[in-house]
Amino acid sequence: MEEKKFNETSWKHHMKGGDGPDSYACNSEFQKQVLISTEDLIRQQIDEHLNIQNASFDPQNTFRIADFGCSIGPNTFYAVENIISAVKNKYKKSNQDQTPDFQVFFNDLIGNDFNALFRNLPSDRKYFVAAAPGSFYDHLFPKKSINFAHSSIALHWLSKTPKEVIRRGINKGRIHYLGGEKEVKEAYAAQYVEDFGRFLNARADELVDGGLMALHIVGFADGDAFSLSGIRMEYEILQSCLEDVAALGKITKEKVDSFNLPHYFASESELKALIEANGSFCIEKIAKMASPSGHKSDPKGFTLQTKAVLGMVFEEHFGNEVVEEVFRRFLVKVVESPEFFYDKYWEHTIYFVFLKRKGVN
Amino acid sequence: MEEKKFNETSWKHHMKGGDGPDSYACNSEFQKQVLISTEDLIRQQIDEHLNIQNASFDPQNTFRIADFGCSIGPNTFYAVENIISAVKNKYKKSNQDQTPDFQVFFNDLIGNDFNALFRNLPSDRKYFVAAAPGSFYDHLFPKKSINFAHSSIALHWLSKTPKEVIRRGINKGRIHYLGGEKEVKEAYAAQYVEDFGRFLNARADELVDGGLMALHIVGFADGDAFSLSGIRMEYEILQSCLEDVAALGKITKEKVDSFNLPHYFASESELKALIEANGSFCIEKIAKMASPSGHKSDPKGFTLQTKAVLGMVFEEHFGNEVVEEVFRRFLVKVVESPEFFYDKYWEHTIYFVFLKRKGVN
Repeated sequence: MEEKKFNETSWKHHMKGGDGPDSYACNSEFQKQVLISTEDLIRQQIDEHLNIQNASFDPQNTFRIADFGCSIGPNTFYAVENIISAVKNKYKKSNQDQTPDFQVFFNDLIGNDFNALFRNLPSDRKYFVAAAPGSFYDHLFPKKSINFAHSSIALHWLSKTPKEVIRRGINKGRIHYLGGEKEVKEAYAAQYVEDFGRFLNARADELVDGGLMALHIVGFADGDAFSLSGIRMEYEILQSCLEDVAALGKITKEKVDSFNLPHYFASESELKALIEANGSFCIEKIAKMASPSGHKSDPKGFTLQTKAVLGMVFEEHFGNEVVEEVFRRFLVKVVESPEFFYDKYWEHTIYFVFLKRKGVN
Repeated sequence: MEEKKFNETSWKHHMKGGDGPDSYACNSEFQKQVLISTEDLIRQQIDEHLNIQNASFDPQNTFRIADFGCSIGPNTFYAVENIISAVKNKYKKSNQDQTPDFQVFFNDLIGNDFNALFRNLPSDRKYFVAAAPGSFYDHLFPKKSINFAHSSIALHWLSKTPKEVIRRGINKGRIHYLGGEKEVKEAYAAQYVEDFGRFLNARADELVDGGLMALHIVGFADGDAFSLSGIRMEYEILQSCLEDVAALGKITKEKVDSFNLPHYFASESELKALIEANGSFCIEKIAKMASPSGHKSDPKGFTLQTKAVLGMVFEEHFGNEVVEEVFRRFLVKVVESPEFFYDKYWEHTIYFVFLKRKGVN
């Protein structure tokens, strides 16, 4: 049976599966640090904004949590356990003698390694498990069926590289808009408007009245997308590795020219504007978090992490052999570029966004 | 990361994954024929017993369906589409201008190939998809959250081989109770009482008041378990293949002696007694369906089907190489035994069981 494509989102925009040394499961320390850095903030926000008097949160009902772009663990388990603990705490503080049953929906693309996710499930979990495969830019759940939506370090993945960029060939010599022409950035921004708008529309339908949503979004301060940054350097090194492989004749220059990473890094004003345009959510908080250090000054760890995250999208375009070659070269170049890890280049932002679904209650 | 075991149910009691020529997906024609043979019966039962006036079935709410022991498709998609179509029909007949949203939970053991299931999802589906991994002998869903439970040709899989059989070594020279000593059959029957009881308890909690459950259960008429049958001959041929491999020194005789297939084939009176003992369900119908012909008189198809279903449990005990050798020999022996396909040996029964959750409504 052939693999099918659902809608337009590629299946391959997912993390490296399995439990092996090159898997996302073993190379997601950065993402874990992001969760840890906002752990208390999420608890505070839940305490402040979860209105358990609201009928949607009657402890007789199931409290349903969805993690959008969950990958294969273990970070997603960490995130949902923190949410469950904070929600339980809120019920207890309110002298409710009952807490609801929890059901957690793990969402990622159909190509995500859900088998690995299930194998990695904590054996002492206190919630019912379900997985909901598919693009989070589509509707994934029935109306008003989710109480808490969570998404961490996933929403910078566009549903696709903007068609304009590929059709008009306006980004040759680069694999991303960072450091490139203004019109390329604008095409990416337009795609983000469409995609993040679709995400908000779908979640607005799926969340109960008064439902909560916590997001970690990789972004830049307004205007910073054009300055030199670690992410931009990372992409430029990857680009130069692809050019090296093309020079060896293993891939064509056209193949490299037609490759553009489907990532967009929004600014706070863009996020606010899109959430307000959607109109279904109250913005309870937007906070800029410092980006965690991750594998700072650890070329090997950094390369493994980058490969676990980007390897599949490279593989989809170039094939598996090229991926190995590119990341072998990437490691060498990172080792040879000590300036790559200078603090000043890694000041991009993680936005912590906490929203509440407007409703009759 | 090591594979973990959840509860006592083995992970390996699942069908062969993937989409390849030896997968369950490509070797489940028999199971499909069972579904086809009761398609109209399920529709009639839904029409007769679904009480859409009941608050649990308000079309504003989501109608949640769970298929227990779904494997990897395509049969499960066929089954749930028939249910959805019949439920929609009932709403329309009752002049409801709205039908509920449908959400389908696909359940199978954690080791099931859910990645393949997701790849095989029909692109034109009209329901929200979720997977719920875990043993159906445990609780898998929040209380009163499922409207319709379905399970086809799965409940003859015990959670485990009865401990008594292994501990006391009372079934040497056989891999199953069929054709064996009475005490072996009794140990299997006791395990079934425990397991099917747990299944009914869990589903009683999970189903809404008035919720429906349709089951296809492979069984025998009362007393027939001791006569010569195709299933018994199949297991005896498998046993003799294992002995051949042991004679070659590739596995030990002790390894063969400690292997017992975790299957139990209930009779109608056993099913009724267990459902009545549970007390939460009205038995709306128990019908004996003739077993479909499947791969009758097609040794190769029959062998592939048997391997897709039993291969994993053999692999767990003996390792992969032995599985290949056993089923290679199995095919040869089946070809050499034309009586194997005689109609009279394949008269075991498929019980169609339709239950309604008792409740205040």
